Amino acid sequence: MAGKFISFEGPDGAGKTSVIKILGDELQAKLGNQLMLTREPGGNSISEAIRQIILDPKNTQMDARTEALLYAAARRQHLVEQIIPALDRGQVVLCDRYVDSSIAYQGAGREIGEREVWNMNQFAIDGLEPDLTIYLDIKSEEGIRRIMEHRTGEINRLDVEQLEFHQRVRQSYLHLQRAYPQRIKLIDASQPLDVVISMVKKTILQKYPNLF
Amino acid sequence: MAGKFISFEGPDGAGKTSVIKILGDELQAKLGNQLMLTREPGGNSISEAIRQIILDPKNTQMDARTEALLYAAARRQHLVEQIIPALDRGQVVLCDRYVDSSIAYQGAGREIGEREVWNMNQFAIDGLEPDLTIYLDIKSEEGIRRIMEHRTGEINRLDVEQLEFHQRVRQSYLHLQRAYPQRIKLIDASQPLDVVISMVKKTILQKYPNLF
Repeated sequence: MAGKFISFEGPDGAGKTSVIKILGDELQAKLGNQLMLTREPGGNSISEAIRQIILDPKNTQMDARTEALLYAAARRQHLVEQIIPALDRGQVVLCDRYVDSSIAYQGAGREIGEREVWNMNQFAIDGLEPDLTIYLDIKSEEGIRRIMEHRTGEINRLDVEQLEFHQRVRQSYLHLQRAYPQRIKLIDASQPLDVVISMVKKTILQKYPNLF
Repeated sequence: MAGKFISFEGPDGAGKTSVIKILGDELQAKLGNQLMLTREPGGNSISEAIRQIILDPKNTQMDARTEALLYAAARRQHLVEQIIPALDRGQVVLCDRYVDSSIAYQGAGREIGEREVWNMNQFAIDGLEPDLTIYLDIKSEEGIRRIMEHRTGEINRLDVEQLEFHQRVRQSYLHLQRAYPQRIKLIDASQPLDVVISMVKKTILQKYPNLF
């Protein structure tokens, strides 16, 4: 495949959405329709229908493994319908979250087990890993603080549970980065946004000179 | 878990539905509400919604791996909502198709790969294999003949493809039976229905004396 597949990962509050927006605009200006910005479910009707089942508030009985399998099914269809054709056309694909999110959130956060979620997702992606993954790292307390900026009041029991969940997610991302240092590059996302952006660009340019 | 988990498997045309119906009626008379007859999706709303996506004729673009992941997700939820609670209550669960069907139909029939479909389904069932699997074996030509009994005309190209598909399914079931001879018992389903029924009962009684 002639294209370039770059995924963006990170815990909530790391600023992933802002980073992708700013970088995407800049790359768009240079690459035009050679760029594809995407995220699961990505607009195909099968993945959208699967996502509706996951998000349906009626489905409170949903088992964590059922949910992980549904995310993997939506991922597979998004890969087959959007990402692979784009890479075949030689496009640069920036994807907001991919397999690493499932390992961190379902495997570690929801405690299904990282290895098990990793193995199951191999079935979904059939070897198609990103060429490069930008991991925006943020301490859990700071990530939660950023999300809750507009909320006031004391920290309650649910917040403590949420903190432990976020800590498991972050630790899992850090494990993945240490296990796949060639693919996953860590950026300290506690820095000001412009510094984060310039470090992300520098990291992408190390792998793909002249992309920007 | 105090219950007994018995699955029924076989290629199309093996007579599985008739066998389960007759055995189920007989067991029902003896066990009453200690018996649970089920098949995926099994009536829970999440598995039913998943099945609707699989069967929706609009979804012609569905990738074979997406489909296998959706079957596994429906299986997981059916297991958690129906089968495990029934086994916990000590019920005898007769299940029409389970993981072996995915291995034979998606793994071998659709040529995803039996090992890969097996591994992915381990995530869904998390170790919960049936205690006993009744495999109704039928030669592919005979199975297809039974399905098409009411159709006339010559065999065409699609029929030949269908025959090869069914042969892959049957070979996969035979592999599974040889790999797990303690769990999977083969019954020759080419015999008259009353002979098949009495052999199935005999096989179940070998494992569970006094069940009938």
